[in-house]
Amino acid sequence: MTRWLDEHEQTTWRTYLRMQSRLQAELHRRLQADSGLSLSDFDVLVALTDRPDERCRVLELATLLEWEKSRLSHHLSRMQKRGLITREECDDDGRGNIVVLTAEGRDAIERSAPGHVETVRELVFDALPAGDVDALARVSAAVLGRLGERGVSG
Amino acid sequence: MTRWLDEHEQTTWRTYLRMQSRLQAELHRRLQADSGLSLSDFDVLVALTDRPDERCRVLELATLLEWEKSRLSHHLSRMQKRGLITREECDDDGRGNIVVLTAEGRDAIERSAPGHVETVRELVFDALPAGDVDALARVSAAVLGRLGERGVSG
Repeated sequence: MTRWLDEHEQTTWRTYLRMQSRLQAELHRRLQADSGLSLSDFDVLVALTDRPDERCRVLELATLLEWEKSRLSHHLSRMQKRGLITREECDDDGRGNIVVLTAEGRDAIERSAPGHVETVRELVFDALPAGDVDALARVSAAVLGRLGERGVSG
Repeated sequence: MTRWLDEHEQTTWRTYLRMQSRLQAELHRRLQADSGLSLSDFDVLVALTDRPDERCRVLELATLLEWEKSRLSHHLSRMQKRGLITREECDDDGRGNIVVLTAEGRDAIERSAPGHVETVRELVFDALPAGDVDALARVSAAVLGRLGERGVSG
């Protein structure tokens, strides 16, 4: 017996889906226009700069980003050609490639981050009263919890 | 002068991004396992079943889904090969192709919808107290408003 969504839930779900895809598209468009980076480039670079040594195993990166391995592999090849990352073989334990941030990649993220943050602020945080920022954090953490994950630390 | 995110905003934003990508990946995985449809197939089929005549111009579909035209075009070719949609030329005004839902496409969405809705309920609505459903609706509508769009009607 399907527990269908009631009208309010249905409207909420569709509004969320639409917001999510429009927001992502707009963040991508502005980032690309301002800095030449795609949102996917940005996500890879952020994941690397989050590491103390600015390097990460391919498999771990795929898990972090929730990308299929083949998509990540193709994307990394393109980023490598543009000099944003490089790859090193990791022979000691046979667990495959390591992705390493280059100086050029670091420059690219440092140049693009201020504009991107300004866009996020304009489109999201400026639009929400403080209570709704808390609500967004709570909702996101609750759904992540359902997905078997603890929250994200600052 | 960049208005950086404060720690609470930064944590909220990262939690939202992670939730969004994990949720999308999980919805995709379960839909694919249950019905053989991808989330992209599902989105196209839903957009078509939303139409009284179950047909939509390609350009309009691209706007609705927020997809690049080339991505949509490739995806529609694959869906057409699988018999889920068909395409008709629209000669009268020269404004290009019309995408039409097939009986097979209608079957596919009708078979997959109950399981997909159950997943959405389990991962999202069962996780939220009623007040947070309202908050999710409010936050989504506020961000959509910033993006220059009115809300989504039920």
